[in-house]
Amino acid sequence: MLKNWVKPQRPEKEELKSRLKAAQEKLAAQQMLLKDKKLPVLVLIEGWGAAGKGSAIGQIIRRIDPRFFKVFSMATPTEEERRKPFLARHFEKIPEAGKFTFLDSGWMDEITKERLNGVLDDQEYARRVDSVRRFERQLTDNGYLVLKFFFHISKKEQAARIGGLTEDKDTAWRVSRGDIWQNQHYDRCLEVFDKYLDDTNTPSAPWYIIDAKSKKFAELQAMEILCTGIDTALHNESLAVPLLQNAFPLIKMPKLSEVPLAGKTLTEEEYKEQLKKLQEKLGMLHNRLYRKRVPVVIVYEGWDAAGKGGNIKRLTGALDPRGFEVHPVASPEPHEKARHYLWRFWTRLPKDGHIAIFDRSWYGRVMVERLEGFCSENDWQRAYYEMNEFEQELHNWGAVVLKFWVQIDKDTQLERFTDRQNTPAKQWKLTDEDWRNREKWDVYEAAIDEMLQKTSTTYAPWHILESVDKKYARIKALKIVTEALEKALK
Amino acid sequence: MLKNWVKPQRPEKEELKSRLKAAQEKLAAQQMLLKDKKLPVLVLIEGWGAAGKGSAIGQIIRRIDPRFFKVFSMATPTEEERRKPFLARHFEKIPEAGKFTFLDSGWMDEITKERLNGVLDDQEYARRVDSVRRFERQLTDNGYLVLKFFFHISKKEQAARIGGLTEDKDTAWRVSRGDIWQNQHYDRCLEVFDKYLDDTNTPSAPWYIIDAKSKKFAELQAMEILCTGIDTALHNESLAVPLLQNAFPLIKMPKLSEVPLAGKTLTEEEYKEQLKKLQEKLGMLHNRLYRKRVPVVIVYEGWDAAGKGGNIKRLTGALDPRGFEVHPVASPEPHEKARHYLWRFWTRLPKDGHIAIFDRSWYGRVMVERLEGFCSENDWQRAYYEMNEFEQELHNWGAVVLKFWVQIDKDTQLERFTDRQNTPAKQWKLTDEDWRNREKWDVYEAAIDEMLQKTSTTYAPWHILESVDKKYARIKALKIVTEALEKALK
Repeated sequence: MLKNWVKPQRPEKEELKSRLKAAQEKLAAQQMLLKDKKLPVLVLIEGWGAAGKGSAIGQIIRRIDPRFFKVFSMATPTEEERRKPFLARHFEKIPEAGKFTFLDSGWMDEITKERLNGVLDDQEYARRVDSVRRFERQLTDNGYLVLKFFFHISKKEQAARIGGLTEDKDTAWRVSRGDIWQNQHYDRCLEVFDKYLDDTNTPSAPWYIIDAKSKKFAELQAMEILCTGIDTALHNESLAVPLLQNAFPLIKMPKLSEVPLAGKTLTEEEYKEQLKKLQEKLGMLHNRLYRKRVPVVIVYEGWDAAGKGGNIKRLTGALDPRGFEVHPVASPEPHEKARHYLWRFWTRLPKDGHIAIFDRSWYGRVMVERLEGFCSENDWQRAYYEMNEFEQELHNWGAVVLKFWVQIDKDTQLERFTDRQNTPAKQWKLTDEDWRNREKWDVYEAAIDEMLQKTSTTYAPWHILESVDKKYARIKALKIVTEALEKALK
Repeated sequence: MLKNWVKPQRPEKEELKSRLKAAQEKLAAQQMLLKDKKLPVLVLIEGWGAAGKGSAIGQIIRRIDPRFFKVFSMATPTEEERRKPFLARHFEKIPEAGKFTFLDSGWMDEITKERLNGVLDDQEYARRVDSVRRFERQLTDNGYLVLKFFFHISKKEQAARIGGLTEDKDTAWRVSRGDIWQNQHYDRCLEVFDKYLDDTNTPSAPWYIIDAKSKKFAELQAMEILCTGIDTALHNESLAVPLLQNAFPLIKMPKLSEVPLAGKTLTEEEYKEQLKKLQEKLGMLHNRLYRKRVPVVIVYEGWDAAGKGGNIKRLTGALDPRGFEVHPVASPEPHEKARHYLWRFWTRLPKDGHIAIFDRSWYGRVMVERLEGFCSENDWQRAYYEMNEFEQELHNWGAVVLKFWVQIDKDTQLERFTDRQNTPAKQWKLTDEDWRNREKWDVYEAAIDEMLQKTSTTYAPWHILESVDKKYARIKALKIVTEALEKALK
């Protein structure tokens, strides 16, 4: 893109001034529409060192109410951030519905730097590009406006700016060693930047190259593109996007109605013996995966009163509390609902060497959100693919991903509900909603069957835990987890 | 894509049958919705030789009313087709609004064949891929549903099918030499196919790989994806898409109000002398470009009564009638309006060595269609980019592209209108619409200024012909054309 790019004509001073004013007024008006229509806008500003990215952001936000935007300057990842998947810290920054996020450099800067440093070989670079394309597509598919700017200056101009900044004591700190290195290796950088821009230039999140030689003109270009982008996005009330082929390595799952529950029991004795043995083993494995820095993500889904909580306890009972976290997942908080539905999970991922257990999960998208109409059909249809992608990111990062469906039959549920109702100490566990959900058992079962068929992959398989006898289900879970960890640690 | 592709699970016979029936019924119902919503659907079926592409199309169309679809089997381009830009014969086949086009192989087949034959080197291949991506994006941006299937079979399966077909005299004709060659070079073909699929897999026109081992199952996969795709597309009433950066090599143009008209005159004598000289020269150049097979595209736009017709006559007067065509462009016919607005121009391109003169053109999109509300704002805003792309395709093909704006002032127009009104032989030239358009002079002038700024490129520049004195404008046009041809023929 940079190589074929053509410098735009800079307007005369008067025209520039009046167009800039018009754009500023427009943006001021748009922020209200944006809020009404709940449009989230992510503005990524990448470019050469000393190209004026920061000051352009500074100019743009002057026209926006401070409640409606956040600015992040993405530095080199910290040690802590390095222990999460590459995208996690970027995903974290996405704006809420109706608001802006401005990023002063982002994932492009990170990837191209590592490319130039030789940290990323061809294959890893290709994987990163793939992740970025998926990430950006997931945002735009879910109604985000993603605007990507590259602030471009020539080698000569960059050298002059670095010189200018360095001369003055008050501004010298703004010149990084990276900027100087860039200028010395300008052509090589141009090569790498240009390839990245080409690799990630998609119709729904295209790149806009900004001629950054003049600050005012750069601001005008960015402002005008921003206004046009917002106009376009505001026009699309609720957008349906093509469903992609769910071509992940799927494992055939039985229908829930075909899962035999009878006879899946253990005696108290068998249970105690196996529990002890498996928990000891798990404790040992936990230490090893901590040392080897293997991250683990375990998902629990299941019918109300199926015994998820007790099952999770038997797992965590064996674990060092410093090395795991359980995330109970209820309906999203307002600030969570205002973002991409995967956001609250991206921000809860374990560090490597840690275990995260999700008591309910992102699969709510294709169960409760689907059936209660909290998202559109296109949204939940698309979600199978998106969740397979999400787990593939985790797998590529090195995580062990396991998913449990805790299964009981309708009669067992009724028994447990009744028991809860009649036992004062357990009454808090039973809500009216549980009864309402029970009435929809059949539609839920069909949705769950579809979910199991479409999201059980070799790298993140579903396991059904037959839990009419809770002891049986607990031992089965422990066995599956220990086996998976043993395999991963080999 | 093919390398990472995972074979889908084939459902049991009973399930397959019932899902196929459901999909067929759905498609039968969708065709009516499609017609109502004027959705055009382009289905491209590519894949291995003998993979059953044709018979799948045969099955799918059985459920569609014959008035609503066309099937094309794209063979190797003919000698005639080779003399047009690569995309022309494909663009020609796009469906009308509310209808289907099925292509039994298309541009993928053409490109990968030429890649395997060694006709396309890396650079030319990259250019083709670029053209395809632009083409498909232009279709989806303009509301087309584009579904791309790749019918995939293994080397063994292909060999078995070729064997089976060859044995039977009645089917042996269906095996081409290309199929046999493909099977012998399966791995090399796989490499080239896979790269092409990766290179052209975009979010708005993604690839779907079909497991074509079983015919019934292949049909089911294609039908289900087709139905889902139509559902998604029907959901989007009127879609606004991101405006891409107009980064073409633009030439700065003056505003019309700044173009001096006074003094741009010729005496009758000067005119006659120069006309004769230039027409002779043009005639000679026409012969040379015919021999050298250079295509020429000339666009005339201008105010009503500015003298376009007479200007064009002075050009064509010098040309061999076998080597040029004039295309008067009025408002589109129903079958033209039902397609992408560039369709009627893609199908009117000259063969190489020929000259096509357009009396009005695709620029109607950003003048009359814009100002009369015949398209949405997003449509005409996007059109500057699309037309620059279109002309770049022509330029890359080797064409000389010239665009004339025939300029007069408002008073001159009034004089000529009055003259037409008062001269019985000229009355047919003046319509009520001309008067109505005259009332909108100022908004037209602003739109024309914007058009000239945004679409005058180094490879397809606008030239303003000052035509208060028509003689002056004619000589200027002849000079520009002869100079451009001389340059191209050097």
